[in-house]
Amino acid sequence: MRNEAWNSHSLCFSALYKGAEVLENGDVFIKVYLPNASSVQLAGMGKDSGFGTDVYDLEKQEDGHWTITISGIRPGFHYYKYIVDGSDVLIDNFHIYHGWAKATNGLEIPDPNLDFYHVKDVAHGEVRHVWYNSKITGRTRHCLVYTPPTYEEDVNRRYPVLYLQHGSGESETSWLWQGKINNIMDNLIAEGKAEEMLIVMDFGYAYRAEKEVIDSHKDNVFTELLTSELVPFIDRRFRTLNQGENRAIAGLSMGGGQAARIGLFNLDMFSWIGCFSSGSMLRNEALREKVFAGKKEIEEKVSLLFISCGTGDWLYQSACEGHETLLSQGVEHTWFVTEGTHEWQAWRKHAFEFLQNVFKK
Amino acid sequence: MRNEAWNSHSLCFSALYKGAEVLENGDVFIKVYLPNASSVQLAGMGKDSGFGTDVYDLEKQEDGHWTITISGIRPGFHYYKYIVDGSDVLIDNFHIYHGWAKATNGLEIPDPNLDFYHVKDVAHGEVRHVWYNSKITGRTRHCLVYTPPTYEEDVNRRYPVLYLQHGSGESETSWLWQGKINNIMDNLIAEGKAEEMLIVMDFGYAYRAEKEVIDSHKDNVFTELLTSELVPFIDRRFRTLNQGENRAIAGLSMGGGQAARIGLFNLDMFSWIGCFSSGSMLRNEALREKVFAGKKEIEEKVSLLFISCGTGDWLYQSACEGHETLLSQGVEHTWFVTEGTHEWQAWRKHAFEFLQNVFKK
Repeated sequence: MRNEAWNSHSLCFSALYKGAEVLENGDVFIKVYLPNASSVQLAGMGKDSGFGTDVYDLEKQEDGHWTITISGIRPGFHYYKYIVDGSDVLIDNFHIYHGWAKATNGLEIPDPNLDFYHVKDVAHGEVRHVWYNSKITGRTRHCLVYTPPTYEEDVNRRYPVLYLQHGSGESETSWLWQGKINNIMDNLIAEGKAEEMLIVMDFGYAYRAEKEVIDSHKDNVFTELLTSELVPFIDRRFRTLNQGENRAIAGLSMGGGQAARIGLFNLDMFSWIGCFSSGSMLRNEALREKVFAGKKEIEEKVSLLFISCGTGDWLYQSACEGHETLLSQGVEHTWFVTEGTHEWQAWRKHAFEFLQNVFKK
Repeated sequence: MRNEAWNSHSLCFSALYKGAEVLENGDVFIKVYLPNASSVQLAGMGKDSGFGTDVYDLEKQEDGHWTITISGIRPGFHYYKYIVDGSDVLIDNFHIYHGWAKATNGLEIPDPNLDFYHVKDVAHGEVRHVWYNSKITGRTRHCLVYTPPTYEEDVNRRYPVLYLQHGSGESETSWLWQGKINNIMDNLIAEGKAEEMLIVMDFGYAYRAEKEVIDSHKDNVFTELLTSELVPFIDRRFRTLNQGENRAIAGLSMGGGQAARIGLFNLDMFSWIGCFSSGSMLRNEALREKVFAGKKEIEEKVSLLFISCGTGDWLYQSACEGHETLLSQGVEHTWFVTEGTHEWQAWRKHAFEFLQNVFKK
């Protein structure tokens, strides 16, 4: 069995044409048909992309294709864009993901030393599109739910639940297609290294029914939605273990901040909390007060407070400061550091570690 | 409850920026930020798009946006593209679908007279991403499976299964995002007009493990995959009614041809067959022989042979000829004609009709 699913790399893929090819030496060969263009360039999205801040010029071929071979892109997932005659556009023959609050091209460079997030020949869980009615937002909302391989067989078994949030500008699809969270879980379960669990991935933005504009996480509409509508819905729809000791919340970047705030302010609902690449949770004043004043309650009710960051992350200094302060205040937590910047290859590693510790008693 | 899910219109969407707006009078207002472009145009994909064969010029605004208001686009779903300085590209702030063997922009124009495919305030089924190992292709493959609202509750109930195929250049995601098949089923079930069933949507292309190039439906790799690997897998994984009388196969265009061939050559496996917008199945020589020689077997074993076409479809004449010949040969079938061309608004109507007749005894 080849180690990647053919037709499920990304939100959208080109099955018939192969635009980007990773060569055996790790170089990337890119070929795009734009016969009418005068200039075709490629650039990473943001400074954490493996393409860095360079702009790459593709070379025009006689047949209307433009090509380039790029060396030295580090392994992992990288958001990038095409610039055609000076305009930022998407090219349709390459994998597409939801990031940067829109559709964006993305490129996966295999890591010769890591395969924990690959599709392997193991029992596969499912990822379900689930729709639910929300009174707070006046909308039918959509979330994704990973169910482990045994879920359909052990029909009397109940499972713990992890609520897992994406980063700013991403969506409920991001942990699936960018994060490969289903592969990570399938593989960990096959090796007996993680508890079987449901993983609920919702869209981390919400706005009230009466509003037409988006409120971000700042005004807590999403917090209210998750705690008063989503959690009860999931507990009705799925065979969950519905006590706080069997419920976790985690996320990356913005989603890690949401996990900290939602988790620590709802300690009867969540006993396991994971913040990946979110900087110091103590930058949030309400949270700082909560952590310091509620130290005893946290000690009693939180089974795992997991904080992680890549050493090259622009939030690494902030994360270290938060970690040091928690240490000095005697707030128990797990501090996990990896290589990597503010990007998905680091977040996959953080999830891989978190999943091996959550719900372990 | 508003009648559309906020964050699940398409494969990928822009939640924060609204690029295309359908005004109350049905006009479409399009606004795209391309400050460095010298020319921005929009055109339908193929002659069946509601944009027709016109190319529309957007007007540059002082702030770097380009805008246009377009009147007279008929209701339904329309593939279209942007042309920036002469190059065909995708624009990232608009809904994206899998079509034309790649990612493509698509626009939905509401039909003031139809809401059968809208999200309504009814019980919602799920759509599951399911991965399965395929020896024939040597790959882990990915399909989508709709499960009806009761599936999680009536844990001893078994369900009939419809295998539903997309058209040429589309994918297993097309009946979900373009077709809105989950909404159609949810609404029909809520009104008691359709049997509850599973709907399996696989990717209609397959190639053998030892090959690197795609074999289309022509050499029957997909037929072999579906009948010898997918059907047994689905019957193991899900609570299915696994006799032919409870199994249907249908599809649109290329997928309708696959449904006819796979269904009629495997009459013990499939008793219900639907061909939407596929022209005459008798154009296929093997199928023509099978239908004429096997008339008695078809009569005995096929509960529904459903053939549909839009009157504006380029295959309408062929479909009519097939229908007439089947009639004259005394091969019982249901002939369903709608308005519409070779496009999704017609296929939604065909599915809506088919679903009200399949598995009805």
